[in-house]
Amino acid sequence: MPRLAYLGPEGTFTEEALRLLDPTAERLPCATVSAALNAARAGDADGAVVPLENSIEGAITTTLDEFAWGEPLLINAELLLPVQFSLLARPGTEIVHIKRVYTHPAAITQCRAYISRELPDAVVVSAPSTAAAAQEVSLPGSPYDAAIAARIAGEHYGLVELAGDIGDRSDTVTRFVKVSRPQPLPKVTGSDRTTLVVFLADDHPGALLEMLTEFSVRGVNLTRIESRPTGDGIGRYFFHFDFEGHVADARVGEAIAGLHRICGEVRFLGSYPRADGVAPRIKRGTADAEFAEAGDWLARVRAGLA
Amino acid sequence: MPRLAYLGPEGTFTEEALRLLDPTAERLPCATVSAALNAARAGDADGAVVPLENSIEGAITTTLDEFAWGEPLLINAELLLPVQFSLLARPGTEIVHIKRVYTHPAAITQCRAYISRELPDAVVVSAPSTAAAAQEVSLPGSPYDAAIAARIAGEHYGLVELAGDIGDRSDTVTRFVKVSRPQPLPKVTGSDRTTLVVFLADDHPGALLEMLTEFSVRGVNLTRIESRPTGDGIGRYFFHFDFEGHVADARVGEAIAGLHRICGEVRFLGSYPRADGVAPRIKRGTADAEFAEAGDWLARVRAGLA
Amino acid sequence: MPRLAYLGPEGTFTEEALRLLDPTAERLPCATVSAALNAARAGDADGAVVPLENSIEGAITTTLDEFAWGEPLLINAELLLPVQFSLLARPGTEIVHIKRVYTHPAAITQCRAYISRELPDAVVVSAPSTAAAAQEVSLPGSPYDAAIAARIAGEHYGLVELAGDIGDRSDTVTRFVKVSRPQPLPKVTGSDRTTLVVFLADDHPGALLEMLTEFSVRGVNLTRIESRPTGDGIGRYFFHFDFEGHVADARVGEAIAGLHRICGEVRFLGSYPRADGVAPRIKRGTADAEFAEAGDWLARVRAGLA
Amino acid sequence: MPRLAYLGPEGTFTEEALRLLDPTAERLPCATVSAALNAARAGDADGAVVPLENSIEGAITTTLDEFAWGEPLLINAELLLPVQFSLLARPGTEIVHIKRVYTHPAAITQCRAYISRELPDAVVVSAPSTAAAAQEVSLPGSPYDAAIAARIAGEHYGLVELAGDIGDRSDTVTRFVKVSRPQPLPKVTGSDRTTLVVFLADDHPGALLEMLTEFSVRGVNLTRIESRPTGDGIGRYFFHFDFEGHVADARVGEAIAGLHRICGEVRFLGSYPRADGVAPRIKRGTADAEFAEAGDWLARVRAGLA
Repeated sequence: MPRLAYLGPEGTFTEEALRLLDPTAERLPCATVSAALNAARAGDADGAVVPLENSIEGAITTTLDEFAWGEPLLINAELLLPVQFSLLARPGTEIVHIKRVYTHPAAITQCRAYISRELPDAVVVSAPSTAAAAQEVSLPGSPYDAAIAARIAGEHYGLVELAGDIGDRSDTVTRFVKVSRPQPLPKVTGSDRTTLVVFLADDHPGALLEMLTEFSVRGVNLTRIESRPTGDGIGRYFFHFDFEGHVADARVGEAIAGLHRICGEVRFLGSYPRADGVAPRIKRGTADAEFAEAGDWLARVRAGLA
Repeated sequence: MPRLAYLGPEGTFTEEALRLLDPTAERLPCATVSAALNAARAGDADGAVVPLENSIEGAITTTLDEFAWGEPLLINAELLLPVQFSLLARPGTEIVHIKRVYTHPAAITQCRAYISRELPDAVVVSAPSTAAAAQEVSLPGSPYDAAIAARIAGEHYGLVELAGDIGDRSDTVTRFVKVSRPQPLPKVTGSDRTTLVVFLADDHPGALLEMLTEFSVRGVNLTRIESRPTGDGIGRYFFHFDFEGHVADARVGEAIAGLHRICGEVRFLGSYPRADGVAPRIKRGTADAEFAEAGDWLARVRAGLA
Repeated sequence: MPRLAYLGPEGTFTEEALRLLDPTAERLPCATVSAALNAARAGDADGAVVPLENSIEGAITTTLDEFAWGEPLLINAELLLPVQFSLLARPGTEIVHIKRVYTHPAAITQCRAYISRELPDAVVVSAPSTAAAAQEVSLPGSPYDAAIAARIAGEHYGLVELAGDIGDRSDTVTRFVKVSRPQPLPKVTGSDRTTLVVFLADDHPGALLEMLTEFSVRGVNLTRIESRPTGDGIGRYFFHFDFEGHVADARVGEAIAGLHRICGEVRFLGSYPRADGVAPRIKRGTADAEFAEAGDWLARVRAGLA
Repeated sequence: MPRLAYLGPEGTFTEEALRLLDPTAERLPCATVSAALNAARAGDADGAVVPLENSIEGAITTTLDEFAWGEPLLINAELLLPVQFSLLARPGTEIVHIKRVYTHPAAITQCRAYISRELPDAVVVSAPSTAAAAQEVSLPGSPYDAAIAARIAGEHYGLVELAGDIGDRSDTVTRFVKVSRPQPLPKVTGSDRTTLVVFLADDHPGALLEMLTEFSVRGVNLTRIESRPTGDGIGRYFFHFDFEGHVADARVGEAIAGLHRICGEVRFLGSYPRADGVAPRIKRGTADAEFAEAGDWLARVRAGLA
């Protein structure tokens, strides 16, 4: 039974994601994304589940930066989890009494309209996670009157749901990934995704165009690109790429070997089945069989055969 | 004397930036980036100063999203501000007594090494701004023992600096911009930057490559690209671009008109002098005089002249 | 009644083309393509009809080089003429008697299989034109026994057709163009072609790719590209381009103005209706209305309007 | 002692080229380029020397088409031969007596200025080769008064040189290649050239741009591109490419395997030392060692190693 670290405490959306990704795993809650990943790195856990991006908030930059700079980990699964927020309070609290709300900043952003409309005078304070907010609110002497968190956090910490599905959009989704220390990759399924981090060799004009051309010339479609600062001053960035296909696919292998040749550093973050099950349209000339046939042809040409 | 809104309370890095951008302006502190921008939009202020990106944290996504979705504003100046953090406490506090630290999440990230080393057992709580943290800590009954904030916040709120320059890196910089309601653009200086938001018409493979080609074919160099979620589900993004040059430059005008033609929506966010004073290397054939001469040539060709 | 020069003598395929392009024109036969074009340049004719390319032979390089280097002329019409060759001889000649055949080199190439099969022992001598060959063979003391030429050349010079349609392929076509001194261009028809000559500024790697990108980024499709030596040594070339659209089209105008900016010299050779009547598929964002709308948008942006 | 076929008769520029390429070879003169190549194909010769292009005339299209359509041959050497023309006549002839000149069409083009100036009234007739012209003029009953050919043709056929170096340009060069039946390729020298013929799979807009991108993305520089008609009507072309490097180079191999995958047919025509000895500038990331290192890296990534 694997042991998986995750962003805790109990009751977070990440716990929900973990349960869906691996229902039988032993769960190890951690205080931060970094702590969860470090537990996996150190062997305290067999892996970790962390959020990567949210359809409203965008990238979880802590996760991106941990993947880029920390000890290498490999993504081996992803999950898309619908995100629904509830307004949770200690039994007996009424909405009109709520003066101080505690929740994660992402929830503040995503429930902006509800807060403005229903809690116009409340002070909203940032918590490290939505579940931590619920936990805090559940304490008798808490300075906070309510938390915004997942319904299961309320169940977990004995809070009452004063309002449900209070997000501005009802279709918000967070993408979670399961990572482990380097190990054999998941098998090719035909609906795979690969994630990379790329550092430029020298930040010349056109460098990004060159990187994208390495993908497009092999018919590899990008699904996400994020720029992140290298830390060396404004205007210096590195890049996260998600793209269709598995590194075992010939077109993907040649594309990322091309990136490796022209870029400063390419860090491979994993190939894994897509949560949405979408299969790529393979561009003419870029299927594995076509690469193999071209390799045979090249060998004959190099041997001087007609 | 213009009145400028900014992310307050008094003592924020944003206030420092505002004072440098316009020393004589009347200052209107606001609780959030959104509130500062809305003050400018509503006419309560003549403009606003907000952070756009940080060399460690990356983009300030609230600012990016406000620029993309809110009522249009135009950037007319930028500033690069070195960021130095101090550990601030009420007089009489010693480091060994510090159990609860209050600061903005960006400061938590940027002072991670110091906190681990010097305050390993402290609980660190997220504040809406570093100055707000200092203000809170200055209150007699505050549950927090120290704030991490700018030194001037300490001076402002009567706190003592227990340690200075505690960031992990001493070269951290934040880029601030000054915005106003739409108005005539700053003049071309020869060292200008332009900022855009681009929404795709249809999110086909290669769309980003096509956008970058619109720039590169006119010799316009990108300096920053950020993808942000449109909110319509994982995998749907729009883009922020910064690039060299002023929209009055022929090459820039043709490039963004090209984007406007092939993309769903292009929102112009301003052309303004670069804070670093760097002048672009103009690629052969892309100077204004060359565009003008080519326009004359085309007119002659269309008239059937040799 | 216009007077048109052409590659004579009477009975050439060029004469056929001229009659189809302008049935009422007065015809001025000339000894060479250069002579015909010079007649138009000098005002001895109002224009000229010359071959540009053949579906078997390829480009008529004399024509290409005349267009590139000689006094400027503009193409204002094109014609695709099926080419059929006949074996022509003086009355009384039988195939078995034919020892020396006279014809234009293009006809030698295009009738290679017939000659090998039916005239395996004949010597085949190059003539300046197929009609000139027929004319020569018609002279009583001619050293040649037969000509390969158009059937009408035989009728014209009193020769007998010993075999018809003797080309290796029955679908051979030659493309002819009508040119004049610079004058107002033919109107846009929606099925137009434009022809250019482009000299590189400096022959750097990637120069051709850059030129093609100027076309592709504006959605302009090439229909022909020919490289020709500049004369300055092996490895130095200039280029002929044919592409879809009329120079009055916004996308074509911007593309060739782009070429003009980045290349050494662009010589415009005309915009004219396509002989095949094919209308281009206009790529999203490249129609005239879209260029106009983008121009309006850019003007508003430059004026600082939202 | 190898036996090499060439475009004869004795005294052609091709013979000069052959003597320079292989001074000890037995020489087999042939009536046409096709005949010389067929001699090599059939085993009547060990190889052949033929002209490929001329710095004034451009491509020798017969050679290009033979390479594309005939039984496969491989180029294994090239030579750049300065071309100088002489006016040659039977002893006793004076320039003023010359009424009919015989020579190859390429010589007519290249000596156009001399002919106009010095022989304005002469009729100039096309010969199959310059040496054949000299041979013909040397016959007592020849209808021609003079030939334009290489000086050595005059020596060979007993003609007198009435004028030397009569070409319009004194720096004209012809590029010759030596070919053989398929056999092991010449070794990599570091200054190599590779020649290909490429047929499109389907002639869609942008096909040429895609082909050039296969080269550019691997840092392979084109040195020549020729389009030739496929024979299937105006507007249908295939392409000859010359480019820097040897097919044994990793970057060249990957580029042409890429072409092979996306194109209809790629015919390899040889890798051989450049006559000009120019070594390519290897773009960062495209040297053999970098390809090898990237291959190792990819193998580790695919094995799940960090």
